[in-house]
Amino acid sequence: MEGAIKTVVMQFLSSARGKESLGGKNFQKLVQSQLGNILSDTDSSSAVKDMMKGLDDNQDGKVSFQEYLTLVGYLANSSQDLAGICVWTPFA
Amino acid sequence: MEGAIKTVVMQFLSSARGKESLGGKNFQKLVQSQLGNILSDTDSSSAVKDMMKGLDDNQDGKVSFQEYLTLVGYLANSSQDLAGICVWTPFA
Repeated sequence: MEGAIKTVVMQFLSSARGKESLGGKNFQKLVQSQLGNILSDTDSSSAVKDMMKGLDDNQDGKVSFQEYLTLVGYLANSSQDLAGICVWTPFA
Repeated sequence: MEGAIKTVVMQFLSSARGKESLGGKNFQKLVQSQLGNILSDTDSSSAVKDMMKGLDDNQDGKVSFQEYLTLVGYLANSSQDLAGICVWTPFA
């Protein structure tokens, strides 16, 4: 689990290329290269732009690490819903 | 990255053993077995109990998936601080 948390952190750092937050292009690259299975429409730049707007709490046109963790939380929640159904549904 | 998010989710589901949230014992086991490097004092049950109280927003004596994600976010933040220092500090 620690490795998984580190992966999530390092992915942000490598995408942000030394900056504190992800600009539009870097966010797009991250989403397209990393989240193509878990998210739909990742190849649609307008869909990714809309997602970015939804994450950009302080409306600075970038995705901070906190805003990125919100995305990770959202993805974990939607995976949990799916996983919860697949893993724990007792046979009727 | 998707694999890392799935690992975080599956770890909660397997620790919760089909329940919606983690009780004291299951939370203790998760912390001791999974977070022994990233967290200190994981072998101290009172320290883990205190951590659990800090996470337990609705004070129901258990850790829900949302409260668990708060822990993951906290750990990611503290890893980012460390990683940020190690990875991106330019040579003086």
